[in-house]
Amino acid sequence: MYQDLLSQIYHEVKALRLTGQQTAYIPELANIPADKFAIHLSTITGQKYGVGDFDEKFSLQSIAKVFAFSLAYKIKGAGIFNHVGVEPSGDPFNSLVQLEQEQGFPRNPLINAGALAVCDVLINELANPEIELMSFIRQIAGNEKITYNTAVYKSEKSTGFRNRALINLMKSFGRINNDPEEVLDLYFKLCSIEMTTAELSQTFLMYANRGKLPNSNVQILTESQSKRLNAIMQTCGFYDEAGEFTFRVGLPGKSGVGGGIAAIHPGKYAVAVWSPLLNSKGNSIKGMKALELLTTKLGWSIF
Amino acid sequence: MYQDLLSQIYHEVKALRLTGQQTAYIPELANIPADKFAIHLSTITGQKYGVGDFDEKFSLQSIAKVFAFSLAYKIKGAGIFNHVGVEPSGDPFNSLVQLEQEQGFPRNPLINAGALAVCDVLINELANPEIELMSFIRQIAGNEKITYNTAVYKSEKSTGFRNRALINLMKSFGRINNDPEEVLDLYFKLCSIEMTTAELSQTFLMYANRGKLPNSNVQILTESQSKRLNAIMQTCGFYDEAGEFTFRVGLPGKSGVGGGIAAIHPGKYAVAVWSPLLNSKGNSIKGMKALELLTTKLGWSIF
Amino acid sequence: MYQDLLSQIYHEVKALRLTGQQTAYIPELANIPADKFAIHLSTITGQKYGVGDFDEKFSLQSIAKVFAFSLAYKIKGAGIFNHVGVEPSGDPFNSLVQLEQEQGFPRNPLINAGALAVCDVLINELANPEIELMSFIRQIAGNEKITYNTAVYKSEKSTGFRNRALINLMKSFGRINNDPEEVLDLYFKLCSIEMTTAELSQTFLMYANRGKLPNSNVQILTESQSKRLNAIMQTCGFYDEAGEFTFRVGLPGKSGVGGGIAAIHPGKYAVAVWSPLLNSKGNSIKGMKALELLTTKLGWSIF
Amino acid sequence: MYQDLLSQIYHEVKALRLTGQQTAYIPELANIPADKFAIHLSTITGQKYGVGDFDEKFSLQSIAKVFAFSLAYKIKGAGIFNHVGVEPSGDPFNSLVQLEQEQGFPRNPLINAGALAVCDVLINELANPEIELMSFIRQIAGNEKITYNTAVYKSEKSTGFRNRALINLMKSFGRINNDPEEVLDLYFKLCSIEMTTAELSQTFLMYANRGKLPNSNVQILTESQSKRLNAIMQTCGFYDEAGEFTFRVGLPGKSGVGGGIAAIHPGKYAVAVWSPLLNSKGNSIKGMKALELLTTKLGWSIF
Repeated sequence: MYQDLLSQIYHEVKALRLTGQQTAYIPELANIPADKFAIHLSTITGQKYGVGDFDEKFSLQSIAKVFAFSLAYKIKGAGIFNHVGVEPSGDPFNSLVQLEQEQGFPRNPLINAGALAVCDVLINELANPEIELMSFIRQIAGNEKITYNTAVYKSEKSTGFRNRALINLMKSFGRINNDPEEVLDLYFKLCSIEMTTAELSQTFLMYANRGKLPNSNVQILTESQSKRLNAIMQTCGFYDEAGEFTFRVGLPGKSGVGGGIAAIHPGKYAVAVWSPLLNSKGNSIKGMKALELLTTKLGWSIF
Repeated sequence: MYQDLLSQIYHEVKALRLTGQQTAYIPELANIPADKFAIHLSTITGQKYGVGDFDEKFSLQSIAKVFAFSLAYKIKGAGIFNHVGVEPSGDPFNSLVQLEQEQGFPRNPLINAGALAVCDVLINELANPEIELMSFIRQIAGNEKITYNTAVYKSEKSTGFRNRALINLMKSFGRINNDPEEVLDLYFKLCSIEMTTAELSQTFLMYANRGKLPNSNVQILTESQSKRLNAIMQTCGFYDEAGEFTFRVGLPGKSGVGGGIAAIHPGKYAVAVWSPLLNSKGNSIKGMKALELLTTKLGWSIF
Repeated sequence: MYQDLLSQIYHEVKALRLTGQQTAYIPELANIPADKFAIHLSTITGQKYGVGDFDEKFSLQSIAKVFAFSLAYKIKGAGIFNHVGVEPSGDPFNSLVQLEQEQGFPRNPLINAGALAVCDVLINELANPEIELMSFIRQIAGNEKITYNTAVYKSEKSTGFRNRALINLMKSFGRINNDPEEVLDLYFKLCSIEMTTAELSQTFLMYANRGKLPNSNVQILTESQSKRLNAIMQTCGFYDEAGEFTFRVGLPGKSGVGGGIAAIHPGKYAVAVWSPLLNSKGNSIKGMKALELLTTKLGWSIF
Repeated sequence: MYQDLLSQIYHEVKALRLTGQQTAYIPELANIPADKFAIHLSTITGQKYGVGDFDEKFSLQSIAKVFAFSLAYKIKGAGIFNHVGVEPSGDPFNSLVQLEQEQGFPRNPLINAGALAVCDVLINELANPEIELMSFIRQIAGNEKITYNTAVYKSEKSTGFRNRALINLMKSFGRINNDPEEVLDLYFKLCSIEMTTAELSQTFLMYANRGKLPNSNVQILTESQSKRLNAIMQTCGFYDEAGEFTFRVGLPGKSGVGGGIAAIHPGKYAVAVWSPLLNSKGNSIKGMKALELLTTKLGWSIF
């Protein structure tokens, strides 16, 4: 059933000939063929369904913030909320206005400022932050080969002036413990992680499965943590378009400017989509549409 | 089972001796005894459970915005989103900053500006807006006696300068069709509607029941509209604390400065709580805590 | 000498064929012929020089705020600064953002919010506010016939939603003592006052003459008050273009959306210009240019 | 006459026992004895008058921005205004909010963002920016020994996260040509320049003397540039207290968080004051008061 549904959605979205902008500020992302498009769904009972370019790697960008936050939440428990909040920002993902007004305390872990604060916490807590973070992501992906793209990482590092502004502003408020450049380095590696659409839907299954790895039954996050993280994705996962996504799709999820979106239906499945064409809010246009059609046709949203 | 659970939560919350502020700007609300506290839960299969002062009327205030929006959504369909958005505001419920920056277009129907825009639409569309709106609310409440409190209405009308500022700002951007004072009049009546906690949980059952009245099976909102309205409540129902509520409680809901909160679990139940002590964001402190305990103890949130 | 200079400037500015927008939101002002242009200069020693349409009435609009503030300053002394500040706003003349952030305290008496606060003070202090304010303006103008234009007043009153938003916001912060509509009524009459360019330069002479009427030697403002009012005009007289005017012209002054500008050189002269074409900041384009040429050619600015 | 007047003001201000805060974020400045106080006045005809600690060095901080801008204005002429504006900011000196809203274009050259943009221009234009800037300042000071304090420079460089945020934000908007760290280095050296109060009043004489060095008659800035720079100091020289300074003192000037203020009366004199106690806006409390008394007692302001 799912396989036919995904094919139908895939062709329906393709037929709409939606257009958008590709990320311009990272040259490596600007050159991805604009017509790439994939949908992949993994159920907690182990089925997998895919259509389109679901075996091609793409840059996770902000989607990877979910993983860094998961690890920090696992380590610090509720103490992580001394470093980041849980409120939607109502502003673009990289806005400094709110951060200045709120004395450098980031609204949530899924905007840039919040993810930088999370990386700072990981550097505090871990002996080898980069290695341990990558290892954690490989564990929940069930895939030892997940890594970041060096060219994208270097490109972001050499041009990430806005993120440099964000972290120095937080540092000026005493919110960052480590050297800003060290935190940025971890952050840029995180954002440069690549997965295929199939790998991404598999990796997100844990969030649909109450914090447990579906294959091994290892509990990564507690059930309560998993629910709360899903709640944060629901209200904060799509920059200043979180309301629109919740309204149209009705599932918790997270998008990235690489054109990917991952979403989950708790207790049922994880789904990932990828198309590099973005709307003005930085979310994949075809991805949003595909997920909207999915929950409409299934008659299933969480609401 | 539910009855014992509610009693347990009721006493557990009482024992916490939580304190807060009562609404100061409406004298009629400032005089409610601070220790009033009620929880009431109605299931879509017809059971009802209550504890505390669930048979006393209180002022719905912003909770009533859900009903006005429901009627406008029913009448206009998706066209209502030409008048209000679906994004969380990230700002206090009565902020003008964002409204000015966004040329008078309200972020969502559950902040003051949005509810004023909704009232303006109702005046456009209805021959007798006040009568038809009240009639609609009585229909979904299944209770012909629901009405507004005249003293509260008059009090709000004579002191509602902030709301007068909001609507005149929207009017200056051409967003309001009718005389601002006429719209304010309907809005203040709406906010002054009173229900008991039991009546409120009953009235919200429709939103847990895919838009259908549970007793009569009359379809008030379409299933899709009902889901989407729930999605809006999830991201926008608690002023600039929507993230916190989603995080802690994990249910769509709406609060009011009268100290009430109504929330729903789609397909299961509606629950209402009331205690006039508010936190700094304008949400009932005991109410938030009671609902957090409810979903924690039940192990049920939508995530 | 002045006469030739003004003629030269007049023709030089005309030759530039500068274009701009006329005020759209007051229909009566939108219909003024776009090519109207006048310059008039009065010295404190009694000479008068004019060129162009300097004997035609135009709507003072915000220029009249200087007169209302002068009267309130005369009455209340330094106590007036409990009601308005002396800082430039850095924002457009009718912005609510700053007013909300600063709890309804207006930055200075020459933006709309500040002039509304000043009108509120005049209503507190005067038995017949409208009559006494008009009488005061006639006194400093040395002209018993100065009055407001009824059509403009009515037009502003029926469409002044932005000003209604401003005063209700201030009222919500407890900054306004009287009924907002009563304050607005005085404010709209003030803004609707008409003068010719010649009358305006004559009326501003008092500010060039240390607070004394040049003909009668009656001291209206103290010398200190006069200097301080000039300082406020220097930093706040041109909305969010006060820096530009100070930079280019180097004289204290005040502009209005009717296309007029009045400026003074302390101890020397008052000058008024009028042309209804405005730049994007709401200041007369030809007027700014004419005054820039005047101080450049004279080699006289206050700096 | 001036000598007696300055003594009188000095004792009058001392007797007021004004208190304030010393700069906390630069440890070297936090340790200056709080009771340091000096006034020094230099006339364009060559007289010099001083009282108090006018022969002790202090850190110029933001006052030095005037010199960097003077050099950039001299080099680029009006072209410098492609890099910085001339409007007061209405916000604190180091705010990012406005800078973000205005796409990284700094309001004026006397706030931090503007001075950083000016330093970037100097690096573009000069073969040896540091040496040539220092040489320029020594020339207008008529003192070859003027230099910066190494400890203060290093301290600012190691803690200047807010300035690092500002310049990276501007860089992200494409407003900065050079490596942010290189620009910051020049900027921190500029801010760390030390002078005595006597040296400062001597250095500012050029701005009172239409751009000409009073001793040598060398024309550094054109007469027009000098006037325009004075106009910018008038509207922008005191962070978000420029209106207050203009209102109370009525002279163009510039303050720094080292507790210094320099001001000029065009055609007459330059005056400098120093006391490390600051008000909440970052301006010297005793300095503001001394200058207010000076222009009140002299009966001379520019208004």
